[in-house]
This record gives sequence, structure tokens and C-alpha cells, in this order.
Amino acid sequence: MDSRVERHAELIVEHCVDIQETDDVYVSAPAAANDLVVALHAELGKRGANPLLSWRNSAASRAYHREMDAEEYALSEHSLAVMEEADALIAIRGDENTAETSDVPPENLSAAQRANQAVQEARPDRWVGTQYPTAGNAQKAEMSTEAYEEFVWTAVNKDWDEQYDHQEQLVELLDPAKEVRIRSGDTTDLTMSVAGMRAVNDDGRKNLPGGEVFTAPVPDSVEGHVTFDKPVLYMGREIQNASLEFEDGEVVDYAADQNEDALGAVLDTDEGARRLGELGIGMNRDIDRFTYNMLFDEKMGDTVHLAVGRAIDECVPDDADIEGNQSATHVDMIVDMSEDSVLEVDGDVVQRDGTFRFEDGF
Amino acid sequence: MDSRVERHAELIVEHCVDIQETDDVYVSAPAAANDLVVALHAELGKRGANPLLSWRNSAASRAYHREMDAEEYALSEHSLAVMEEADALIAIRGDENTAETSDVPPENLSAAQRANQAVQEARPDRWVGTQYPTAGNAQKAEMSTEAYEEFVWTAVNKDWDEQYDHQEQLVELLDPAKEVRIRSGDTTDLTMSVAGMRAVNDDGRKNLPGGEVFTAPVPDSVEGHVTFDKPVLYMGREIQNASLEFEDGEVVDYAADQNEDALGAVLDTDEGARRLGELGIGMNRDIDRFTYNMLFDEKMGDTVHLAVGRAIDECVPDDADIEGNQSATHVDMIVDMSEDSVLEVDGDVVQRDGTFRFEDGF
Repeated sequence: MDSRVERHAELIVEHCVDIQETDDVYVSAPAAANDLVVALHAELGKRGANPLLSWRNSAASRAYHREMDAEEYALSEHSLAVMEEADALIAIRGDENTAETSDVPPENLSAAQRANQAVQEARPDRWVGTQYPTAGNAQKAEMSTEAYEEFVWTAVNKDWDEQYDHQEQLVELLDPAKEVRIRSGDTTDLTMSVAGMRAVNDDGRKNLPGGEVFTAPVPDSVEGHVTFDKPVLYMGREIQNASLEFEDGEVVDYAADQNEDALGAVLDTDEGARRLGELGIGMNRDIDRFTYNMLFDEKMGDTVHLAVGRAIDECVPDDADIEGNQSATHVDMIVDMSEDSVLEVDGDVVQRDGTFRFEDGF
Repeated sequence: MDSRVERHAELIVEHCVDIQETDDVYVSAPAAANDLVVALHAELGKRGANPLLSWRNSAASRAYHREMDAEEYALSEHSLAVMEEADALIAIRGDENTAETSDVPPENLSAAQRANQAVQEARPDRWVGTQYPTAGNAQKAEMSTEAYEEFVWTAVNKDWDEQYDHQEQLVELLDPAKEVRIRSGDTTDLTMSVAGMRAVNDDGRKNLPGGEVFTAPVPDSVEGHVTFDKPVLYMGREIQNASLEFEDGEVVDYAADQNEDALGAVLDTDEGARRLGELGIGMNRDIDRFTYNMLFDEKMGDTVHLAVGRAIDECVPDDADIEGNQSATHVDMIVDMSEDSVLEVDGDVVQRDGTFRFEDGF
């Protein structure tokens, strides 16, 4: 067994979801991630936990969704039950073919998400999403499988305490902030309120790798336009050059150079799918290239990302008179901030051309 | 896609578990069965059902059980919840390596079964166990993979109405019977009461392939000795020439030429593991060779099988003043009846040297 896989498994159970004896642990993984699944089960055995292993099978999903009608989707009571009873969720991704669901009607995938929103919401507090380096994801990244493995495990198996301290510098600026403005070239100028929302330091617990600071926009406050420089990979389709125009928080116009219908399907999922749920700022300098995989791309130091759809609960204080955006979907999209770009917090420049004010070279 | 796989998938959803719209269907399968899993998901989509796919991963199970202590096992609440909410269960087997769990302490596997007996008991009424023809199972059968595929799909994709009629001839003899006696060579002479129990016609619904008639012995009634001619494959171990001696229904002595400790672990699972839960009589003439796979071997025409452990609910009428055997385990063992053997029902010979009285050549 590759020692990098064993370290990955240890980090998951210790750092991410802190597994204890008799914890009911729900693991989902594709067949290609077999090594990590085996290493993880050894760790779960060492801790006396109870695993239940679900199989992420995109070919089976494709076959299923192609035969369904959009109006037929219903809540899976058994999927809900397992989520409700689980103490921790470990979701491992890894594609044999990142385009596997590219010939499924997007409205079916949206309908499936809507019908099973309660399953998503029942996710236990202790959860993590992580990545196994497959040949399919390496191909998408235009890397050899071996080079991609090294890329993934370097980003994953790092010193997360050190990363936490680095990110806390931005949390201290963003957490008390009222307004954020993002400008990039001629194509992006967007303002939003984050007043009352919590800025969260992602030190690799819920996402492994982690490496971002994220918060929730006040849903009605978003104004302006944004173009996403990097393609959005949504359920097997690449949405190129997506752009959104916001008024009073809502998308009033959208466009894309490729798969615009898929972007439309995302926005039509429900009412909340036309509003922003997340503003995230990438800070993981070990992720030094785009790999067309959101789990990594959104953590890059030279990027910010916005998600239409559901806000992340942690960002919305329970006791405040404020609500995060509600939706069955959550789709992240990236703005490259490396050139001709400025991130402002309450009128102060916090990042210029990808470099933070607390980094060398600002 | 191989049309035999598509036919297998159709039989499962139509004949075995009769899937209807919005049924919550729990599917478990190994990665090696991917083709059948994909075909099955297409069938579930056609019927508008909700699938949840669990991954049978024997390498992960091995890693887990090797790290556990026997006294640590606890009920998996999430595994129980999914079983309770499922409307139908489709369990697909298929081994990459039939010996994968051969170096796991057998007492751990027994402890795991005991701790999760409630999960097994919560299985929905609509369930089926079936087989995908893997290279590992082909190797165990001493067959090429292609020849084994043909063997499996011939046994599975058959005319089950015709098979039902054939078997009903034995049901009519066995259902009203009081006593059964099994004699084979010098090594087996066993009598048991089946009075009040129901003889069930297995026409490929809960097991695919099916092809047996089975009933439940009255737990305290079993007397005599039996030697099992075919090895019992129990959680990765081959128990050779197992023999059991019964008094008042209970095993009072046992032996095996190989892996006797695994046989002991089975019998020590709990009190009911020392009593018989099933008498089955194989009647599927398309299964014409032993393949060291109980799902098939127990259906052969020239065999009877006995299981220590749990009785099958269908055999025990609800309203009768009679109980089937209770246990967390159910392990089938086979007696070859092809030579020097007689099966008697209430003193009448029903099968001699493998041929039934209603077959040619009796």
C-alpha cells in the first residue's frame, strides 16, 4: 500500500471527522478509489467504528437517469434514513471518465437534486469530501497519472495547522466586513454585502484538500456582473465562459459559450439557484495549477469563487436576524484573479493580482 | 452490453422483486459486477424506482475486521435504518478472490454477524441474492471465465414457470410430511421432523438462480450423523469433510479435515447455531457441476443441503404452535446424494441415487 494513501486515510479519520468507537460512518466512493477505501477501513477498524460503504458509480447513475422522466423523481426514503443515522460522512470522489454523465438530460439531474434535497440537508455535521487521483481526473488536468497522484497527495497530506494560521489573517479581515467588491478586467465588477455573516477558515476538515476562506453573501445584496474564467464542470458537462448579471441579488441575465443550456438548468433548479450562496477565496499555495476539479481549483491562491444556490450553514449565525440562501443546488464558479484584478473589503484592497496584503510582494 | 446481462437485470426487477414506481431499492454489489449494476440501474430507471447502491468490498472488509477486536462490534444503526426503509433488496455477489477474508479471525466475523443480526432480520420481504460471474468464482469452479459466464447465465436466465411446475411435484410430497430421513453411504444417517413446517418452491425469486424445495426441521427433532461431501466455503475458508453428530436436535460432536476451527466458530455463533434451520433439496438440472458456490451447488439435482442456524421465515407458518430455529447465522452444507443414497419421506423413498421418484430412471 502506498504510504501516501495510508496518510490520506489517517487524516480523514483523525483530522477531518474525528472518528470515535461505535461511530456509524457512511463512506461513499467510486471503484477506482479502492486503495483509499481499503486503507480507510483499516483506520475505521482501529477506532472500532461501524462503516457502511456506498458505491459512487457514474455509469450506473447515467443509465438510471437516462431512463427516468424529470417528473418521476421522488425522495429516496432509504437514502434519507442512512444519512439521518450516520454520525459521520466520508465522500470520496474520483472519476474514471469525467464526461460520463454528459449525455444525461441536465433537467433530470436537477430534478433528482430537487427531489432529494432533504437527503443533502440531513448530512451529519461531521462530513468530508475528498479526492482519489484517478486516471480520468489526471486526463482532465492534462497530467500523467503519476504526476497527478503527486499533485493530489501533496495538496492533501500537508501541515494543516500551518495552513490554518496563514488563512486566519484573511478571516480577521473578512469576518467583521460589511461589503466585498470583486473586480477583474472589463468582465467582472460585483459587489455584495456579507454583513453579519461568518467567515470560515477551511483548514482541510470538510474538504480535503482544504485551503480557502469562505462566507455567505446576503442573498438580496448582490449587484453587478461577473464572468467566470475557468470552465464549470457540471455533472459531466463543461460550461465555458459562463457570465451572470445580478440585480437585487438575483440573476437577471446569463450566457455561456458552451453548454449554456446546462447553466440554464442549474439556475432553474429552484428559486434559490438564481442567487449566490457562497463567496470563497482560495489560499492553498500548494495547488499551483488548474486541474478542472472544483475541489482543488477553488483553493488556488489566485482565485475567488462564487456559488449559486445553497449557503453553507456554518457561515450563517443561528442567533442573527439574517438568512443564508436556500436551494437544492450549490454550484461553484471561479474567477481568475491573477491579473488586472482587485478584491476589496469595505473599500480597502485586500488582494491585488492574486497577492494578499499580508503576503510578500503586495 | 452483453444481452445475457440485460436479461439477468430484467429478471431481477420483474420476476424476483417486482419493482414498482417510487420503490426504494437497496442494491449491493462488488465492483467486478459493474456491467450488471449498470444494466440494473437502467431497469430501475425504466420503472421509476429510487436506487441506493452499496459496495460489497471484501478487501475493505478484510482490512476492517483484521483491526477490530471481537468484543468491539456494535450494531450499525445506519445499516439498520437503510434496511428498514428499503422496499426491496438486490444483493449481487461476485468475488475477485474467494479467499480474500481467509486471514481474518473467524471469531471476528461471527461477532460481526451477531452484533448486526437485527440488520439481517430487517431485510425487506422483497429481496433477492444473485451472482455475477467473476474470474475469481470461475477459478474456484475450475472453469475458464467464459465457460463460467455461460454456466451462470444458463442457470439464471431460464424458464422459471417450467421449473416451478417440476418442483411442485416434490412440494406435494414434502409439505404434508412428518419425518424425513437422509442416508448416504456409511457416513450419513439423519432423521428429523418437518411436521407443521411449510415446503417452499424456490422458483428463482429470492435466489437467482433458484431451483430447490426447502423446509425447516423442527429444531429439537434432529437425530443421527451427517458428513458433508463438499467443502463448505465460510467467509474465505474451506471447511473440508465437515461432520456433525446430533442428539435432541443439537450438535454434540463435530469434526472437519481442514479448518475445523472455522466450523467451531460457526457453531459457537450462538445457541441456535448448533441446531438445524433448513433442509433443502436441489432440483435445478441446468446446474450440472459443483462450482464451490453455495448459491449454485445447493440447487443441483443430486444433492440435499442442511443449514445450521436461522430457519427461513417462509417455512414456519405464523399461526401454528411451532417455532423455527433462531440464530444470527445460517450456513449451508451439502450432501452428495448421487451414489448409494436414499431420501425418505414418512418411510417412502422419494429419491434414490439422485433421481426423484417422479423423474425418468427412478
